[in-house]
Amino acid sequence: MPVMTKNEKSLPAGRQAIVLLSGGLDSATALYFAKRKGYKCFCLIFDYGQRHKREIESARRIARRAGSQAQVIKISLPRSGCALLDRKIKFPTGLKCQVSSVRKIPNTYVPARNIIFLSFAVSFAEAIKAQAIFIGAHSQDYSGYPDCRRQFYRAFSKVISTGTKAGVEKKRIKVQIPLIDKKKSEIIRLGKRLGVPFELTWSCYRGSKVPCGRCDSCLFRAKGFKQAGLSDPLLTKLTKN
Amino acid sequence: MPVMTKNEKSLPAGRQAIVLLSGGLDSATALYFAKRKGYKCFCLIFDYGQRHKREIESARRIARRAGSQAQVIKISLPRSGCALLDRKIKFPTGLKCQVSSVRKIPNTYVPARNIIFLSFAVSFAEAIKAQAIFIGAHSQDYSGYPDCRRQFYRAFSKVISTGTKAGVEKKRIKVQIPLIDKKKSEIIRLGKRLGVPFELTWSCYRGSKVPCGRCDSCLFRAKGFKQAGLSDPLLTKLTKN
Repeated sequence: MPVMTKNEKSLPAGRQAIVLLSGGLDSATALYFAKRKGYKCFCLIFDYGQRHKREIESARRIARRAGSQAQVIKISLPRSGCALLDRKIKFPTGLKCQVSSVRKIPNTYVPARNIIFLSFAVSFAEAIKAQAIFIGAHSQDYSGYPDCRRQFYRAFSKVISTGTKAGVEKKRIKVQIPLIDKKKSEIIRLGKRLGVPFELTWSCYRGSKVPCGRCDSCLFRAKGFKQAGLSDPLLTKLTKN
Repeated sequence: MPVMTKNEKSLPAGRQAIVLLSGGLDSATALYFAKRKGYKCFCLIFDYGQRHKREIESARRIARRAGSQAQVIKISLPRSGCALLDRKIKFPTGLKCQVSSVRKIPNTYVPARNIIFLSFAVSFAEAIKAQAIFIGAHSQDYSGYPDCRRQFYRAFSKVISTGTKAGVEKKRIKVQIPLIDKKKSEIIRLGKRLGVPFELTWSCYRGSKVPCGRCDSCLFRAKGFKQAGLSDPLLTKLTKN
């Protein structure tokens, strides 16, 4: 049983939760965190036209390993200007977005992505009477992503309380952002304690057989494992094969 | 050119707008209102598993008549407990939800429907750099629907300003709810002035060839036309055929 920090202990226990699962290590940690808090988890995985389906397969496997139900939701989004959706646009590299002086919204920003994901999560939460929605957004993701900021989640919570039947009937659906203030290395340490199967997670923006090691997402992951003093089980597994 | 009320005049003019189009007369009026305000409109029509597709076809025709582009977005929603999605559940009748003493959320409530629709609208608005999103929600619809209340739209506006690139860059995307305080009869009078092709609109919860005349949606429509002192062009057309 891992040691929980004060912040983690203060989260309310409940019965059912919707977990937004992307296939990456953050949302996998959010899932295992929710399970550890006693929630029966229902995972939503989005097929939103991303350039590769590798992460969707990863998300399915993670849910299966966690013993949680999962549903893939297919949606169409406009493609304009986003590197995750449009093959003509190059991925960002070099971790430039980490440097606060040049912090701006990277071209991997998908317009309103988390707003849409959370909206579906609310719909499913109302349908199955879940008390919570878990999302693995965090401050390091706030490499400029507006929909990874605490103030956005505060605003979205108000949407739930004013715009849903559950809200009107005072049956609270809480948006849980347990990783919001954590660095990648802290998330990895937490995930390790929670038993997250990191070897099943996928972070690379590209969908090849092995991570490219060059895109920002690969670089963040590598740096996180290094700072956590751990080796990346995905790379270990791939090296063995 | 119709006479605009003071409230209508105060809305800002702009270039492009996303319009949420359902096929009913409210959203059709919202579309024609947006056009009259000078917006080039892009309509989003949702195929969300509703029991009949009649309204989707109506929405397509309305957009075509208005000379606006339209896109049908197919999504899957959980079906639990909603009469619009589940054939086993009976539609409400008798306009009970109009009586304030028994005002409660009817079983036609679709969990988080307007939240999801608006989320997609935000994504498209960011993609095409639209300045506004129009939705035909109104107070009479607030026969208990939490997502038709002014406070919900206020909360959602905060989500846009905090959770999107447009919001961070102070490029405002305004949620326009021009019908919010209007009664059905007032919407019909406004629509008449704006030239809304009411004969193309569809309100009936059922998808037969002619409106059932018994469901709450048919009753609200009939009452609205009666109070507006107008005949319903849809019924006139059907009677002729």
